[in-house]
Amino acid sequence: MSGADPDRAAELDARDPLARFRDRFVFADPDVVYFDGNSLGRLPVSTAARLARVVSEEWGGDLIRSWRHWRNLPRRVGDVLAGPLLGAAPGSVAVSDSTSVNLYKLAVAALDAQPDRAVIVTDEDNFVSDRFLLDGVAAARGAEVRYASTPPDEGLSSPAADAALGRLIDGDVALVCLSHVSYLSGGIADMVALTALAHDAGAMVLWDLSHSVGAVPVDLAGAGVDLAVGCTYKYLNAGPGAPAFLYVSHELQDRLRQPIWGWFGQSGQFEMGPRYEPARGVASYLTGTPNVIGTMMVAAAVEVIEEAGVDALWQKSRRLTEMLVGLIDTHLAPLGAVLASPRRPEARGAHVSVSHPQAWPWCRNLVTRRLVVGDFRPPDVIRL
Amino acid sequence: MSGADPDRAAELDARDPLARFRDRFVFADPDVVYFDGNSLGRLPVSTAARLARVVSEEWGGDLIRSWRHWRNLPRRVGDVLAGPLLGAAPGSVAVSDSTSVNLYKLAVAALDAQPDRAVIVTDEDNFVSDRFLLDGVAAARGAEVRYASTPPDEGLSSPAADAALGRLIDGDVALVCLSHVSYLSGGIADMVALTALAHDAGAMVLWDLSHSVGAVPVDLAGAGVDLAVGCTYKYLNAGPGAPAFLYVSHELQDRLRQPIWGWFGQSGQFEMGPRYEPARGVASYLTGTPNVIGTMMVAAAVEVIEEAGVDALWQKSRRLTEMLVGLIDTHLAPLGAVLASPRRPEARGAHVSVSHPQAWPWCRNLVTRRLVVGDFRPPDVIRL
Repeated sequence: MSGADPDRAAELDARDPLARFRDRFVFADPDVVYFDGNSLGRLPVSTAARLARVVSEEWGGDLIRSWRHWRNLPRRVGDVLAGPLLGAAPGSVAVSDSTSVNLYKLAVAALDAQPDRAVIVTDEDNFVSDRFLLDGVAAARGAEVRYASTPPDEGLSSPAADAALGRLIDGDVALVCLSHVSYLSGGIADMVALTALAHDAGAMVLWDLSHSVGAVPVDLAGAGVDLAVGCTYKYLNAGPGAPAFLYVSHELQDRLRQPIWGWFGQSGQFEMGPRYEPARGVASYLTGTPNVIGTMMVAAAVEVIEEAGVDALWQKSRRLTEMLVGLIDTHLAPLGAVLASPRRPEARGAHVSVSHPQAWPWCRNLVTRRLVVGDFRPPDVIRL
Repeated sequence: MSGADPDRAAELDARDPLARFRDRFVFADPDVVYFDGNSLGRLPVSTAARLARVVSEEWGGDLIRSWRHWRNLPRRVGDVLAGPLLGAAPGSVAVSDSTSVNLYKLAVAALDAQPDRAVIVTDEDNFVSDRFLLDGVAAARGAEVRYASTPPDEGLSSPAADAALGRLIDGDVALVCLSHVSYLSGGIADMVALTALAHDAGAMVLWDLSHSVGAVPVDLAGAGVDLAVGCTYKYLNAGPGAPAFLYVSHELQDRLRQPIWGWFGQSGQFEMGPRYEPARGVASYLTGTPNVIGTMMVAAAVEVIEEAGVDALWQKSRRLTEMLVGLIDTHLAPLGAVLASPRRPEARGAHVSVSHPQAWPWCRNLVTRRLVVGDFRPPDVIRL
């Protein structure tokens, strides 16, 4: 479809198998049109009940005794995420720290495991925090970061991306670190092909799933991925600053060693032994005392997503973004706006970006005059 | 006093100026006698209301727009902690990550700033996570960790501790990292003297305040401390896995650089610039997206502590631990139990440790038969 067609939208809504999930989320102000789930997902109704239980009963009531089950929470909720959302084996995912800290830990671990390789490859449009973190890791080790140049409106979803990355990946590369869905364009990278490209050169690969998990299908085991991280407060709706997750393939779990040797990564944690001995498996990638309440919020939120099913969400998001692209073509293109996302629906994640020199005042006016909440990213992009 | 004297206890309770604060905390099961606030503090009544507000209104209602005030939360709540509880200047404390991650960041920063010094000094009875983290930082840099041997029942509160540490601190030492109150003995270190000892040798000092903040007075500025970290879920009662805090003196904030270059430590964070440029001040020690909900819980909990006043809490805890030591002398010493904490009240934090070969079954029986919750630490210590 193209153009504004409220009848067609109403018809699609009526046939939408996911429509019943609307009631599972809080709509505090029904006049607000929220187009910013890519930045902060909505509050699930079930989260309030879960929070009350963990705070009042488990903390307030059972106090310290709750640590008997809290201590395994990072791995237990990791397993909840693993299968349906990440295509990962049980025991390969843990909820822990922030995405930034997890990316740091895994990047350092990958570099330390390959002392004869001192190059990291990423792309120019990777999320700022990822680029900065990699620069920091490289600076501390005298390593080099090579940046691939990809078309900004398509990112790694462009067929040219493989070639651009291929030129940078050689036998000196220890780690290729990329975002599965670009925070800027929403373009989906070809995880299978790019992972194979890295492996062919003997490099490890680390995927940031922050903008894909819960929105598009992910198959880490199927793609043979080594390492991954992601956040939980966008499409997973776990709340502001809820803890992130990390994935380490079973093959690498005991071969790599992360640098932050906190007591939750220790084998026989409560024995308080004299020297650090990493735990077996994915637990060795934990650090300090976990964010119990945040991890419970991840568990509550993920249940809703898994009940809806990521394939169904992905189908619906393609229909929605297609409609949005049609509206942009009809109404905004004549005003000079440019679609800053891939045009092929299967190459797009769950958000669409549009660029225009007046993007900032447009975005501000949408919020203040129409209660339509989008997301401005400098210099000229609105993400919806 | 010595021996069990319920009349005397009731009399002290009746005169207790802090008694009214009992109603500010949740006592879900009035039969439970909770002696484990040193491990997980009780739930403040006000926390539930604060949580409901941040979750329902700020997240559920205002959604992404709340980031306008959430983004400064780590520093704002850091300032709430700074003055009354830490004796620190405004702008020198931030709430961030876990204690483990903060200790890692500051230890690496201190070592990186002094490339001509490659030794870290700590003590054998420092908390396991601190020792492990320092071992990890040293291993990554080919640095050495020197462990001071201190009397286990007095730790750094012993007059011998200065001498034991003094022998290890020379011109090769970059960092002296110690706990203000020992997690094991509850002994209080002489922060002023030991900081001066480190500075005399040209080393920096990093204090872990996890077992002192909220329980005993801390004066970081007065002692000339360089760096500090601490947790919020013990005596501050911020909840399981609530975020920790870090302190960097104003002199060092722009001189040191921490290794985890996440976007919350970046100058001009939302400009998404091409290269990492650390923020000015304590903000440069932040990493990824902060734990908003946990930070709000810190704010709610700290308000109660500051209203009660740490000096009043410290006075009361000395009266309580003195009574407990008297009871241990009267009833447990004849059974072979040994006080594993300093005998001088002014050398003790807010917990008392007792050691006995049967400590583990004792501790278990206290919980299961008497609903008295203490805290066992291998091999033979109960902390109360």
